[in-house]
Amino acid sequence: MQKLQKEETIALRNKHIGKSCQLFFRKDPLKIVRAKGQYMYDEKDDAFLDCINNVAHVGHCHPKVVQAACEQMSVLNTNNRFLHDNIVLCAKKIASTMPDKLKICFFVNSGSEANDLALRLAQIHTGNRDIIALEHAYHGHLTSLIDISHYKFNLPGGVGQKDHVHVASLPDVYRGKYRDTEYKKDEMGTLYANEVKEICDKIKSDTGKGICAFIAESLISCGGQVIPPQNYFKEVYSHVKAAGGICIADEVQVGFGRVGKYWWAFQKYDVEPDIVTMGKPMGNGHPVACVVTTQEIADSFMKTGVEYFNTYGGNPVSCAVANAVINVIEQENLREHALVVGEYLLDSCHILAKKHKCIGDVRGMGLFVGIDIVQDRETRVPDKELAQYAHHRLREEHILISVDGPHNNIIKIKPPMVFTKENVDEVISTLDRAFKEYRHNNEMYSVNSSKQPKATEVSVKDHRPRKALSETQIKSI
Amino acid sequence: MQKLQKEETIALRNKHIGKSCQLFFRKDPLKIVRAKGQYMYDEKDDAFLDCINNVAHVGHCHPKVVQAACEQMSVLNTNNRFLHDNIVLCAKKIASTMPDKLKICFFVNSGSEANDLALRLAQIHTGNRDIIALEHAYHGHLTSLIDISHYKFNLPGGVGQKDHVHVASLPDVYRGKYRDTEYKKDEMGTLYANEVKEICDKIKSDTGKGICAFIAESLISCGGQVIPPQNYFKEVYSHVKAAGGICIADEVQVGFGRVGKYWWAFQKYDVEPDIVTMGKPMGNGHPVACVVTTQEIADSFMKTGVEYFNTYGGNPVSCAVANAVINVIEQENLREHALVVGEYLLDSCHILAKKHKCIGDVRGMGLFVGIDIVQDRETRVPDKELAQYAHHRLREEHILISVDGPHNNIIKIKPPMVFTKENVDEVISTLDRAFKEYRHNNEMYSVNSSKQPKATEVSVKDHRPRKALSETQIKSI
Repeated sequence: MQKLQKEETIALRNKHIGKSCQLFFRKDPLKIVRAKGQYMYDEKDDAFLDCINNVAHVGHCHPKVVQAACEQMSVLNTNNRFLHDNIVLCAKKIASTMPDKLKICFFVNSGSEANDLALRLAQIHTGNRDIIALEHAYHGHLTSLIDISHYKFNLPGGVGQKDHVHVASLPDVYRGKYRDTEYKKDEMGTLYANEVKEICDKIKSDTGKGICAFIAESLISCGGQVIPPQNYFKEVYSHVKAAGGICIADEVQVGFGRVGKYWWAFQKYDVEPDIVTMGKPMGNGHPVACVVTTQEIADSFMKTGVEYFNTYGGNPVSCAVANAVINVIEQENLREHALVVGEYLLDSCHILAKKHKCIGDVRGMGLFVGIDIVQDRETRVPDKELAQYAHHRLREEHILISVDGPHNNIIKIKPPMVFTKENVDEVISTLDRAFKEYRHNNEMYSVNSSKQPKATEVSVKDHRPRKALSETQIKSI
Repeated sequence: MQKLQKEETIALRNKHIGKSCQLFFRKDPLKIVRAKGQYMYDEKDDAFLDCINNVAHVGHCHPKVVQAACEQMSVLNTNNRFLHDNIVLCAKKIASTMPDKLKICFFVNSGSEANDLALRLAQIHTGNRDIIALEHAYHGHLTSLIDISHYKFNLPGGVGQKDHVHVASLPDVYRGKYRDTEYKKDEMGTLYANEVKEICDKIKSDTGKGICAFIAESLISCGGQVIPPQNYFKEVYSHVKAAGGICIADEVQVGFGRVGKYWWAFQKYDVEPDIVTMGKPMGNGHPVACVVTTQEIADSFMKTGVEYFNTYGGNPVSCAVANAVINVIEQENLREHALVVGEYLLDSCHILAKKHKCIGDVRGMGLFVGIDIVQDRETRVPDKELAQYAHHRLREEHILISVDGPHNNIIKIKPPMVFTKENVDEVISTLDRAFKEYRHNNEMYSVNSSKQPKATEVSVKDHRPRKALSETQIKSI
């Protein structure tokens, strides 16, 4: 299945692909040549359990999705300046999963294209330009989205904060500005939401104008798998609407039933956004995405007289794929599955937390889970090094997780929806071993060496060559 | 092959798809259910000759492209944070068609994503923000690109011209600011290029800074199939580089061998852009696109420390498709074919022009041709109505052309590359009949009616219900 030896692939990548492009485990990257369900296989056909690829939503290379794509691809793949059944059936189905008012679709190729169009629609509809987004938010790789993505623009080499961009605190009840140690959940929801109101008020007093839009992921991914307090969005939406703004729910990462109980994570909060954007899981890897909005907002766009054309957006193949993904979710009861396995995963993480003090918090919904790794449960000081250690050790054990969040200490689990309870057991038991090893290693240092490394000095490089401890060794720890 | 009756498709489209989305022949749109080579078929299985779909580059549903996509889709489709052979082989191949210095690729999902990233790279590399683009240019549907696309921002309901955007005259030697009636070609090239220099000088004197980028299509599509004078880009690039700017060649519409003699249209002018963007034909309908740039510019991006991640960009399926498209172009000698058929098309248009004074100009290269329709050859007043008439009459004859340009009077022909000489004959003879009919109809009006309509009053609606004249009737005109 390989055309090149791995070294050649690396050499060509170094020569021809921009180094800014992310590469997992850059010093010793993985070459993946095939995938099936929740497993990816490297060039030696070694299997890796995929706990992070929320794009391969219904499982890598799902045969029904592949079949739908191939059948349509061999018949027609052209733009939507011609009528076609696939696009209208896809739009009808998506609209049926939404509040009634959200019924107009614009099909695009990526979550980024969707969020860019959402902002454009909001600007046209409101006539305002000020955007409120969340601290550490990420909404896509396009210029307009880097501008509103604190996760990117605030980096040392980032573009910085533009005038029209306003950042509200991440509604993180565990390590945010308002914490569960001091406040009740509802109080925190109100306090975080009030920040949005204050920003609206300031914009009004500074510019005399209302705001354009508030945009947030319904569950916050790059921010560290954050689940906002239940009353947060309802209060925020109320403030934003009062300030003349549009509420945009970014469901690119968390939509399409990942949360189990709902099709869309915003439905958890009993709110009605004005615009919903979706992408990643929609095509199970195929580039298709969508903006769903109201008749009024779509009408405002139409009234400009500026037509919208997206060459590939909503083409018959993309929509055949999206329709197949939705059908598979329904036929295989993947939402129910996500609910059951997600709860089992959360329970298992909680049990693990009882054994390991390094787990400060466990949070999630459905198959969207975060484990907050800390140096100390009282102070909640994040432990980036241990999170990184676990990341690399699990890779050695052929399990792919990711680590993210403002402090790079949140272990993220957001696997294909076909993830099983057995997979959960494997991840949890391997994390268990990794945490034990790490503690053992650090204790070894503190006993044997006068030059004991602080956690911050234990680089990934130090950890990587270490072999996994044997079961006997671990039991003896 | 239909899932819905056409009326149902229309009703659902009206209900669920934003009306801003372009739809050909909106009052009586086409429902296309299958396509092969240069033909599209409606729900009655009536064939339409496709003269406009430059995306279906190597022919609709080319079996080798479909096969490559399906094979890869059933094996692996994931993001490029893992190593994969397809992306590096695609990058290597693309780099081999470019000047040596253009060797670093960033894979994205659409021409719009490519142009957005190109601007971002230019801003990062130069530290400047002023962009020079051409009058009536179109570079994509994203916010950052609408801003630089005079074709869009300058519409009555458009967003208007932003401070950082500067518009240089369209280097159209037929109906632009400097015309072939007054100047030699080289003189016009210099005069048009000097406008770019003047803009650079003004930016320097106004801001004290250099410019960020000059961006143009190498052959200008929405501007009306314009072929700039041979010396234009060389002189422009020299001015832009002197002003510290980056030269971006937008090859989204015209790349991948459409011009026949070259892989990329910029190669006609013997210039070396700093960034080349490509899209549409690259995937034969599949969403894949690319930014190619220099080591220096890629390094500037890397030095920001801000990583780039594009979920679907450069995935194994997209790259399998792109590799297959390139292979088909080479194996089927489609560049040579485009050269031969393109010349035959141009010759045929010139012969047609000898019969019809309504043809003011014929221009093109390879399978990228424009016919400039005029009311009067001397004054060159554009004849939008006749162009629209031809557009609709050819549709009735099952031939799809498009009409574009600042005055909506340019008949555009940019078919799949498998277009044949017989197809050319069909288009030309049908245009011949349409022009004769139109003249005949107008003469009928002028003889039979005291209330003679001016051309501007002859609406499309008036023309559409007319039946084609019979061969006998036409011969009698």
